[in-house]
Amino acid sequence: AIAGKNIIFVAGLGGIGMDTCRQIVKRGPKNLLIFDRLDKPDYITELQKLNPKTKVAFYSYDVTVPLSKSKELLQEVFEKYETIDLLINGAGIMDDHQIEKTIAVNFTGTVNTTTAIMDFWDYRNDGPGGVIANICSVTAFYPNCQVPVYCASKAAVFSFTVSLALLAPVTGVTAYSINHSITRTTLGQNFNSWLDVGPCITEKLSDTPSQSTAQAAKSFVKAIEANKNGAIWKLEQGKLEEVKWTGFN
Amino acid sequence: AIAGKNIIFVAGLGGIGMDTCRQIVKRGPKNLLIFDRLDKPDYITELQKLNPKTKVAFYSYDVTVPLSKSKELLQEVFEKYETIDLLINGAGIMDDHQIEKTIAVNFTGTVNTTTAIMDFWDYRNDGPGGVIANICSVTAFYPNCQVPVYCASKAAVFSFTVSLALLAPVTGVTAYSINHSITRTTLGQNFNSWLDVGPCITEKLSDTPSQSTAQAAKSFVKAIEANKNGAIWKLEQGKLEEVKWTGFN
Repeated sequence: AIAGKNIIFVAGLGGIGMDTCRQIVKRGPKNLLIFDRLDKPDYITELQKLNPKTKVAFYSYDVTVPLSKSKELLQEVFEKYETIDLLINGAGIMDDHQIEKTIAVNFTGTVNTTTAIMDFWDYRNDGPGGVIANICSVTAFYPNCQVPVYCASKAAVFSFTVSLALLAPVTGVTAYSINHSITRTTLGQNFNSWLDVGPCITEKLSDTPSQSTAQAAKSFVKAIEANKNGAIWKLEQGKLEEVKWTGFN
Repeated sequence: AIAGKNIIFVAGLGGIGMDTCRQIVKRGPKNLLIFDRLDKPDYITELQKLNPKTKVAFYSYDVTVPLSKSKELLQEVFEKYETIDLLINGAGIMDDHQIEKTIAVNFTGTVNTTTAIMDFWDYRNDGPGGVIANICSVTAFYPNCQVPVYCASKAAVFSFTVSLALLAPVTGVTAYSINHSITRTTLGQNFNSWLDVGPCITEKLSDTPSQSTAQAAKSFVKAIEANKNGAIWKLEQGKLEEVKWTGFN
């Protein structure tokens, strides 16, 4: 589900994103389109060099733009590449001092990007279908209460992904969630907790078994290759595990 | 936990809100402050007549205002009433054609109102503590995929409430979630589904066992009286049940 495909990675130049893009490029997609807020030309050059068979392109994209802007960019991309096979929604911030921004990036951004691509993919518009991989978090299920807004935004994206998978028979668009457990990224290094309830998350995290972004990236591409609608993938300590959603009882 | 208390009910004049306010007033709070977007003087008059020992007051409040505005209103209220014992966050819309508004009302509004009241309640500010009841939904756990944005916003508020309860030892503010199962309200009558995937939710719901808002209101006040930090209350078919959060495994 990677070789020869056209893939959009939103936030592909972040901590988890960049290592995952390295793994993706090694598996030879036809085109890897990086949608990110900041251009990092060195990263693009590095990705391009990893595999000459893959074309890597950068598109400036802030997920907090209105839905109409997301549609415009996708129109441009679909005209150029004709088809896109996989959309990876990875934009995320962790800063519970910024309530609106956290929600806009982590939740609304994913919903709007997904809604925008449906114009091109939806069976009901004679589209070919497609696949969505949403980066959520294990905190969607087990909140870290020091960053309740972050966790809640991830719970929202998880729930949205469950619905997308249920709608696949109608829309032709399948979806699965990628739920990282503690991963050593820049997100947690200088984080602000909600109302400063927990200024020590970094220390706590450093005592807890974690994984590198490189380990997480290898699990991520395995999940992409599995390409299973509705799957809930847990990526923990370098392992990939499919888990079941039990809700409450 | 109702008699003699000062209670703020956000969205107290809606379908679930109004019937719940009727039940609350019957139990004799000192003051019931209705924070709602639209003034409905007849409703306020009716509530006031139900129990002359309770004072009912209306405050115009749109939960989508910036945090600073929420704080200003609460400043006014705390100056007048000195203490508030319980905040009920009940603002909610269901219209998946309006992605930003759904998220702003159902999720951001609850987070901002809660964040605003912490200035007055937080132990760390020498506050007296307080209690928060957040109206979520069973769709926080079992999404109805016709309205994935609505369900995701409710999953977010549920997660946020779990975190609030975990933070009670630090902040002095306890919290529980009120999760209605199918309740016959105006929310579902003219709903728009996401990308029109399901124009028949109302018909489907009418085939499913449901409860009236009056039944739900009786369960709601039982949950308020129980006043249990971290409780996850399911309100289904006229019954109140405390459930356990199992997440995934």
